[in-house]
Amino acid sequence: MPRYKVTVAYDGTKFSGFQSQPDQRTVQGTLEAALTKMNKGGFIRVYGSGRTDAGVHALGQVIHFDYPKEIPARNLLLALNSLLPLDMEVVASERPVADFHAQFDTIAKCYRYRVSRGRFTNPFKRFYTGHYPYPIDVRRIETALLDLLGEHDFTSFAASGGVIKNKVRTIYAATLTVDEAQNELIFEFTGNGFLYNMVRILVATLLEIGNGRRDVHDFRRLFEVKDRQQARGTAPASGLYLKKVYYPGDEAALDQIKMI
Amino acid sequence: MPRYKVTVAYDGTKFSGFQSQPDQRTVQGTLEAALTKMNKGGFIRVYGSGRTDAGVHALGQVIHFDYPKEIPARNLLLALNSLLPLDMEVVASERPVADFHAQFDTIAKCYRYRVSRGRFTNPFKRFYTGHYPYPIDVRRIETALLDLLGEHDFTSFAASGGVIKNKVRTIYAATLTVDEAQNELIFEFTGNGFLYNMVRILVATLLEIGNGRRDVHDFRRLFEVKDRQQARGTAPASGLYLKKVYYPGDEAALDQIKMI
Repeated sequence: MPRYKVTVAYDGTKFSGFQSQPDQRTVQGTLEAALTKMNKGGFIRVYGSGRTDAGVHALGQVIHFDYPKEIPARNLLLALNSLLPLDMEVVASERPVADFHAQFDTIAKCYRYRVSRGRFTNPFKRFYTGHYPYPIDVRRIETALLDLLGEHDFTSFAASGGVIKNKVRTIYAATLTVDEAQNELIFEFTGNGFLYNMVRILVATLLEIGNGRRDVHDFRRLFEVKDRQQARGTAPASGLYLKKVYYPGDEAALDQIKMI
Repeated sequence: MPRYKVTVAYDGTKFSGFQSQPDQRTVQGTLEAALTKMNKGGFIRVYGSGRTDAGVHALGQVIHFDYPKEIPARNLLLALNSLLPLDMEVVASERPVADFHAQFDTIAKCYRYRVSRGRFTNPFKRFYTGHYPYPIDVRRIETALLDLLGEHDFTSFAASGGVIKNKVRTIYAATLTVDEAQNELIFEFTGNGFLYNMVRILVATLLEIGNGRRDVHDFRRLFEVKDRQQARGTAPASGLYLKKVYYPGDEAALDQIKMI
């Protein structure tokens, strides 16, 4: 059967995460329902690049599936969007190599995390940002971000209970942009892989560094101690966006990110 | 008991409308729960300027309530915000005249309606705008908006089933702003009162006028025929924002709006 690779954006607010679950509105379940309807009831299984938790958003989640008919990429995009709810949108569609796998073929991912600042929260940012009301020294965070670059053991930054033994990951880029107009801090992390909750734990730690509650080079110590209890916080799901998934063929774009 | 007047903003996405209902997360129920907790369990009844439907937002909904203690306005705002969920925020708090009533004392209201344009919807605007993918001639809408000004019988623009017999209302201002950067149309309507679903029906009719499906002066006909079936559409709740409620004392601000 022909295989398709599709990039989807979604507002995670009203999804109970990615993975199909009975009686829950999930990303995978919603995509499978649309494709199965398109296929006149024949079930179509969807495979994602990875799960996103409840409330986590995607600007560029990637999925693959096998579909019994040949459909031009553009037509597939239009057909699928006409069947999907309005808080999910197919943004790209293509025919990958025959054995492409959305999860196993990833070479890198990029996550964005938005933090709103200020004494009060904006109720319209509740589902789209984390919130940090305390003073921040941006230069301390910028210094700390440099400690993240390269290969490290992220045991201190992985939610417990994971089955993945090897917690060594490589970070290619870790940036902070200050959006003065929106009064937000915008983090972006690109790496060859991320452990469960890793971005949210990194952000919580970075904010504590920015506030002065932690040493500016505390990441160096946390990589050594390999102890989840030492990096206590986890920033909320609402601020997290899966921005882009990289696959073989995307090396040039990834090299550009590494040079920043 | 001292009476308080409080202005709240909320993201309507996760509220089942304003009015308290068993087992539903509502605006009124959420405010009453916070105030009742503040009052150590003694129930506090909240009165709003009017109901908002499920999914409708507020930038400045006004409520009043009686509370057994004297609290400085600023302290009340801080205490209430510490108890409210993050998708609702008290933005102002004051001591009104003793017999102030949030619903019966209104002299005018202003609603905003956001319409996103373009062939595709942005999934992150699904809960915050209506969407209109068809061509629009903005000048036609601007011409039609002038027909709305003044006193008219809005029977054609009221959802059926309402108990209110008198459907004559006065519109003080009706404006359209084109947000090119966001690719949105932003309507604002200020009037002495609005019937159930009236703003959403007006917007649906205005979009049809802008698209050329209706005569540019169709409002004049619709005021005459007094027939809800002739103004068929209702724009979705997601684009609607209760922006401001006017009370005695706000006449000067209202006069400024009328002059635009």
